[in-house]
Amino acid sequence: MKSALVTGAYGYLGRYVSRALARENIKVTGIGHGDWADAEQPDWGVNDWHQADVTLEALASLDCDIDAVFHCAGPSRHSESMTKPYEDYQGSVATTIAVLEFIRRHRPDIALVLPSSAAVYGVATEQPIKVTNPYSPLSPYGVHKIIAEDLCRSYGKYFGVRSAIVRLFSIYGIGLRKQLWWDSCVKFTKGVEEFIGTGEETRDWLSVEDAATLMMCGAERADSSCPVANGGVGDSSPIRDVITIIAETLGYSTDIKFDGTTRAGDPTDFKADITEALAWGWKPDHRWEDGVREFAQWYADGAP
Amino acid sequence: MKSALVTGAYGYLGRYVSRALARENIKVTGIGHGDWADAEQPDWGVNDWHQADVTLEALASLDCDIDAVFHCAGPSRHSESMTKPYEDYQGSVATTIAVLEFIRRHRPDIALVLPSSAAVYGVATEQPIKVTNPYSPLSPYGVHKIIAEDLCRSYGKYFGVRSAIVRLFSIYGIGLRKQLWWDSCVKFTKGVEEFIGTGEETRDWLSVEDAATLMMCGAERADSSCPVANGGVGDSSPIRDVITIIAETLGYSTDIKFDGTTRAGDPTDFKADITEALAWGWKPDHRWEDGVREFAQWYADGAP
Repeated sequence: MKSALVTGAYGYLGRYVSRALARENIKVTGIGHGDWADAEQPDWGVNDWHQADVTLEALASLDCDIDAVFHCAGPSRHSESMTKPYEDYQGSVATTIAVLEFIRRHRPDIALVLPSSAAVYGVATEQPIKVTNPYSPLSPYGVHKIIAEDLCRSYGKYFGVRSAIVRLFSIYGIGLRKQLWWDSCVKFTKGVEEFIGTGEETRDWLSVEDAATLMMCGAERADSSCPVANGGVGDSSPIRDVITIIAETLGYSTDIKFDGTTRAGDPTDFKADITEALAWGWKPDHRWEDGVREFAQWYADGAP
Repeated sequence: MKSALVTGAYGYLGRYVSRALARENIKVTGIGHGDWADAEQPDWGVNDWHQADVTLEALASLDCDIDAVFHCAGPSRHSESMTKPYEDYQGSVATTIAVLEFIRRHRPDIALVLPSSAAVYGVATEQPIKVTNPYSPLSPYGVHKIIAEDLCRSYGKYFGVRSAIVRLFSIYGIGLRKQLWWDSCVKFTKGVEEFIGTGEETRDWLSVEDAATLMMCGAERADSSCPVANGGVGDSSPIRDVITIIAETLGYSTDIKFDGTTRAGDPTDFKADITEALAWGWKPDHRWEDGVREFAQWYADGAP
């Protein structure tokens, strides 16, 4: 791979994917939303940035030679899909078909990597969760990820478009200004020391840098059969442990309280079976315990 | 039901649905493609016709009070989806999410009826084909119908949008200028008397007028659980028998020849299990043997 297109390169995952590609001397073109200062783009490895909706027309008008598309554009909040399902669909599904059709018409030989989500599983029937676990999404976000995957399989089966899918579990890393880690930092700062849930819920935490290298492995494995890998480390940790380290790092009491509530239908445990990811030649390179300390320290430093 | 919106009312299925609604004194508003002469619209029961793409914006701008949407807009050719998958997707999936979001935002209490297709089954694992038969679509057309169905289920589950799905089998009727019946008439006229296949392939033929009444029953049964019914008569007939009647009616030799070819992956048999449709209180009112004679006679009369 010499050059790649990263959709949503201005976004959280897109930035890390772009930088990981650039570190391998792969030339990165980006497209998506975001008024990105020219001077900042090279910090993230982006050679050429196009601020535009990810449509078939916009993609076709890009004058660049690429070997792969990393389709990182799209919404990433489950909860917002419950109030804005149409916008979630447009960002998730409509952009995916645009990318697939762009490849079919204009670059039939290149690879597509689609970041999907453990949200497609919802409440899992087994732990660790295999890629063959039945779908049971808990929000339109999960439904739309399944549909985006189905479109990849359809374009693979009928038109030979080569793709690979990575179902990301719980991604973390510097710069993520939302979700549990960020929200916990904010809570402590506000003096709140009681958290929702039991604390015993588990997540499979994956560094966004490891997610990026896994997606790069996916590009090498992309095929018309559309292989799928889970993106996790293959282990799970209780939310209580994460919050305890955040409290320690920020200098708050580690006598964390949980309100004990469980939301009906909310998945309590996520642990990925990463057989396929390992078979792709990938392995995770980061420990979440280090990551959460770095994250809390970054927050304490003002989240620059 | 006092009034209904029919998307694609200018199309083949849409016309018959509109007329069936009008016959029950239901006021019909139509939207979709087609430069429809004002004078002709009432012949098909359409009270008000809006020539426009079926988008969220176009739907929201309609100033009409409706109790149901019959989403008849969309492509109907399997084969075209193999060369124009993006257009098939736009016509099938993108219009369906527009209708669903229109209902969620603006008319949360009304019913949606989605005509789906036996193409979702592809090669069936059992005969007659139950609605629980696994999906095995043979073209993007079938994939997109599944996705449109999935979106109905998602909007039902998360937002309470009430819908019903009718998976239509082989629809026939005056005015259908494509598919087997039409193509066979054209072939005889050109002096061709050899047909593709073995002639033993079977189809479950449903009159487009019966399809329309089934969809009206669907509107009464629409629910957030999104019930599904097969649209067929529950019986199947060999293609040879259909072509023989066409030959008789047109005055050609009935010594029909078939080239014996079978296309890999082509479904050979379709026979619907219509348990759900019967439970909705519907029953078919037409026999295909009469329909094919009328059709061939209509063709012989110049297909006015």
